[in-house]
Amino acid sequence: MTAITPIDRLINASWVVPIIPENCVLQNHSIALQGQEIIDILPTNEAQQRYRPNHSHDLDNHVLMPGLINAHGHAAMTLFRGLADDYPLMTWLQNYIWPAEQQWVDEEFVKDGTELAIAEMLRSGTTCFSDMYFFPNQAAEAAHQAGIRAQIAFPVFDVPSAWGRDANDYIHKGLQLRDDFKHNQYVEIAFGPHAPYTIADPALERVAMLSAELDSVVQMHLHETAHEVHDALDQNNESPLERLHRFGLLTPRMQCVHMTSLNDTDIALLQETGAHIIHCPQSNLKLASGFCEVQKLSQAGINIALGTDGAASNNSLDLFAEMRTAALLAKAVANDATALPDHQALRMATIHGARAMGLQDKIGSLEVNKQADIIAVDLSDIESQPVYDPVSQLAYTACAHQVKEVWIGGQHVLQDRQPLHLNMSELCEKATQWGQKIAAK
Amino acid sequence: MTAITPIDRLINASWVVPIIPENCVLQNHSIALQGQEIIDILPTNEAQQRYRPNHSHDLDNHVLMPGLINAHGHAAMTLFRGLADDYPLMTWLQNYIWPAEQQWVDEEFVKDGTELAIAEMLRSGTTCFSDMYFFPNQAAEAAHQAGIRAQIAFPVFDVPSAWGRDANDYIHKGLQLRDDFKHNQYVEIAFGPHAPYTIADPALERVAMLSAELDSVVQMHLHETAHEVHDALDQNNESPLERLHRFGLLTPRMQCVHMTSLNDTDIALLQETGAHIIHCPQSNLKLASGFCEVQKLSQAGINIALGTDGAASNNSLDLFAEMRTAALLAKAVANDATALPDHQALRMATIHGARAMGLQDKIGSLEVNKQADIIAVDLSDIESQPVYDPVSQLAYTACAHQVKEVWIGGQHVLQDRQPLHLNMSELCEKATQWGQKIAAK
Repeated sequence: MTAITPIDRLINASWVVPIIPENCVLQNHSIALQGQEIIDILPTNEAQQRYRPNHSHDLDNHVLMPGLINAHGHAAMTLFRGLADDYPLMTWLQNYIWPAEQQWVDEEFVKDGTELAIAEMLRSGTTCFSDMYFFPNQAAEAAHQAGIRAQIAFPVFDVPSAWGRDANDYIHKGLQLRDDFKHNQYVEIAFGPHAPYTIADPALERVAMLSAELDSVVQMHLHETAHEVHDALDQNNESPLERLHRFGLLTPRMQCVHMTSLNDTDIALLQETGAHIIHCPQSNLKLASGFCEVQKLSQAGINIALGTDGAASNNSLDLFAEMRTAALLAKAVANDATALPDHQALRMATIHGARAMGLQDKIGSLEVNKQADIIAVDLSDIESQPVYDPVSQLAYTACAHQVKEVWIGGQHVLQDRQPLHLNMSELCEKATQWGQKIAAK
Repeated sequence: MTAITPIDRLINASWVVPIIPENCVLQNHSIALQGQEIIDILPTNEAQQRYRPNHSHDLDNHVLMPGLINAHGHAAMTLFRGLADDYPLMTWLQNYIWPAEQQWVDEEFVKDGTELAIAEMLRSGTTCFSDMYFFPNQAAEAAHQAGIRAQIAFPVFDVPSAWGRDANDYIHKGLQLRDDFKHNQYVEIAFGPHAPYTIADPALERVAMLSAELDSVVQMHLHETAHEVHDALDQNNESPLERLHRFGLLTPRMQCVHMTSLNDTDIALLQETGAHIIHCPQSNLKLASGFCEVQKLSQAGINIALGTDGAASNNSLDLFAEMRTAALLAKAVANDATALPDHQALRMATIHGARAMGLQDKIGSLEVNKQADIIAVDLSDIESQPVYDPVSQLAYTACAHQVKEVWIGGQHVLQDRQPLHLNMSELCEKATQWGQKIAAK
């Protein structure tokens, strides 16, 4: 008989979908946690003999899976949710979003908006999010306070905003932020040059040089529309992707967000360089930006992660809904119902996101020695019956509100749908106040 | 001072979206009910002076809107939810669904499956559904018992099934069912010839003749894939739609389900005849069936309603999710972000469905003298904040679980998310048992 080992936490569930190994579902298994890490995954009957946990959770009819990774968004823009719908990208930006940002965005707006977004993300199973917005110091601090993992890409533009004067100023402030958070285990600071059409060559060159020197991730909106690509070809005879390659920006540190309108040269560039794609299907549909050819790109060996984009163009931060849209849309776009099957959709929302962020050794799957970023999804309601395959349920049926428990780095951050480190009534009240102020303008 | 009128029920809410008049949102309004009908819609402060209700509901932060109309589905197939994902239409039908149906479908299966589906539909705000499946007598009876409105289209095939031997037998039994339910105010019996490729000319001719004689609605899967249309053109040199027209089936009584791959002749036929389209975007995406050109067809003046299709190819019966997919997808397909705006998406899920069923004078909008089919959607959770426009929330953000209360014909059928005429634990238990039996085969 083996000795009983004391541990911090044991989570027992009807199913565990670890993501790695691939296409695997474990029935009646348990996950043992010590400190921030997963130390064992084993059948529940063995776990109960082997471990004496300080905290124990019995989650019948629940699936445990790695926390979802939302690889692209603008959290604070949640305060603009539903402010302007049914407009094309440039009309939406120029006539609605940019003027609203000019009028309203400040430190407080970003703090309140990011906290609202974090609450929504935790309640829909996201345990790590990427963000690109003004006052990234506020977003980084909000993530830190809430106990959620984040990649904060500080924005770089050539034009001024409330947060910066010019590209050098944005970069200067961003590097300062990077310094402030260099010892934080949960918050990574990345470069966020906004888009090819808002940043000229000198700034882009500087981002390329600094990110290489610092071995830092870069995230950029890229090939969002055919219009953007055509304009670039007209003006400079090179695609936005080719332009980035000219500056050495296409590397495994590069996250290319959107990526519709790719020709074979573009695809070859992605293959050769190991740059990642962040696919945002609902935002692409809503703004009629174009279709990302997920199956073709995936078959070319390119890593594709998933993002909700901001709630102003989605209009939610629900990565389960995004995963479902991605899986459904990929089939129609490829004209092949076998494209992007359920297990692959889950990988896009987890380990692929981790790879894009360079965090694949820490998060994105449930494996021994990885961080304990775990969500529990309840499959007991009638909307989930019958359960032939919990992975089908997660990809094609599950809704955000089925996420009942969330742990990040071993810490319980969502309990029975209540975020433990956020004041929900205060958040709601502040959002209402912002909404009234902005609507009354 | 006016006299105070006693009434059955008064529902007070922060917002009322009546659908007719179009593009209208009423703030702090109330709906007064007497018997099965709406007798008044007015500001809450006036309502409280004018009416003394037997039952009163104060729904702060809720929107009242007409119950959703799910215009195409196969309710009992909910028992096959997630049984076979990620296959093309014909593989899915021939290798998975038809064999499973042959093995399992009987009176009990249809009763249990339809009740499960009705529970899910009520809990997601559907108050009227169309169904096409074997043993339609069971579906009709289940709808009647649950107090939900239904159009039961009895299936007609040339091939035998557990329910019928041949087309004549299906039609005979269907007409008997029609007779049984002729005095039922909530259940309409319609003709459901399955699809052009499963029914030959003689049966189609008989359906055409009988449906015209009886002034009865006909629902049929049509132009579901390019493959179906190409095959028909190859074999008979006419599109499936042209074939139906040859038999006089294209009339305002005809509901054409799916309708991808339409040429200009097809569109002109729909315009001339007043036949309706039932759009099922999630099923079309999942089976890679093709894209329905919603904006083009809508601009041509064709009435387009919305359906979830069966949960075996969706995999839910959530019409809010379907509405959102329809609105997002229409923009991308039309390459126009202004296509299918939020108010129009709501109309598709309500009054357009009523029109397709010939019920536009009874349901599909909140108007005085119409049936009181009303749902209350809660916008108080943080996922809905801030609320600039409740219609944007309903179209782009709302989830099924925000539906809190449902009335059908003035009867309260869902109270705080609990269906009042269904035994939920028994339903869940039966679904689990079916799932275990079918999975073990």
